[in-house]
Amino acid sequence: MYIALLHYPMRNKNGDAITTSVTNLDLHDIARAARTYDVDGFWVVHPAAKQHALIKEIVRYWQEGYGGSYNPDRREAFARLHIAYTLEEAIASIQAQTGRTVLTVATDAFPHAKTMRCLDLRHRLQEDPQAYLILFGTGWGMQAESLAACDWVLEPIQAVSDYNHLSVRSAVSIFLDRLLGEDWFI
Amino acid sequence: MYIALLHYPMRNKNGDAITTSVTNLDLHDIARAARTYDVDGFWVVHPAAKQHALIKEIVRYWQEGYGGSYNPDRREAFARLHIAYTLEEAIASIQAQTGRTVLTVATDAFPHAKTMRCLDLRHRLQEDPQAYLILFGTGWGMQAESLAACDWVLEPIQAVSDYNHLSVRSAVSIFLDRLLGEDWFI
Repeated sequence: MYIALLHYPMRNKNGDAITTSVTNLDLHDIARAARTYDVDGFWVVHPAAKQHALIKEIVRYWQEGYGGSYNPDRREAFARLHIAYTLEEAIASIQAQTGRTVLTVATDAFPHAKTMRCLDLRHRLQEDPQAYLILFGTGWGMQAESLAACDWVLEPIQAVSDYNHLSVRSAVSIFLDRLLGEDWFI
Repeated sequence: MYIALLHYPMRNKNGDAITTSVTNLDLHDIARAARTYDVDGFWVVHPAAKQHALIKEIVRYWQEGYGGSYNPDRREAFARLHIAYTLEEAIASIQAQTGRTVLTVATDAFPHAKTMRCLDLRHRLQEDPQAYLILFGTGWGMQAESLAACDWVLEPIQAVSDYNHLSVRSAVSIFLDRLLGEDWFI
């Protein structure tokens, strides 16, 4: 299983298509969670070369610079981070690397027609030899067209709640626990 | 159920007792998660008055300042945030507010003698009229004496993993989902 953090095209609070900036703590928190749950790769997708340079600078500090020697845990976490300009590039790279079809599963705060239950995907991940790429949006989330282009959309995290504004860092952590976490609920 | 984010006495990477600084995104992410899962109160515990002033400034911006009008979701999330100088102060306040005994449940990356399973606490929360306060450490986690002074310690999040370095923001999110989340696993 792979995850991707998307920055374009995202919705702003009015629903317009925007490009969001990279958030330093997204990289740290999500890389650490990905390593904890043994995700095969964490793709940061951003269309701007300058943001790629920023990501590389952050990763380099924690891999080769002082951060890496002070805190080897971060070096290990960032080893699974990859950068792409587009989602298509990330998909092509995973496909080339694994030789498997890549199925895309979006996440959103609301239910969709192609909703898949976390429990179903958890079972598929254990049985199905295909590669699954779970997509996480930033800003106010993914655009309707992007959601429609995915193979599935995961069920919202807390559909019963009257408040659906988790940070993407929280959402990734919770979905990884639901999809790949140990059987704490048995 | 209540949660507390502790900043003293915490361990540094060598195990020494230290006071950690408040991290802005801890307040945001944890307040949003607490609101999503309908936690009764989120206590930020710090011994330094200057850090209290910083927390209040952040909260005020998102409640009364521009942040609150631009993003009312944050205002709602921060409405559940409280500040205390010590854990004892937070406990006394919850006790006075609810008239119930407050049971403390620590969290740690390692198993302990008084470990409680997430599933057991989940059931207790549904049946038991007492108040539960879940404690989260910052830095390299809570000191052994602090853990020993709690009523229980929750099982580690991913005991099967060879990597146990989640951010506190991730850990809080995952524990809230396991303890209070909807029944996605049935």
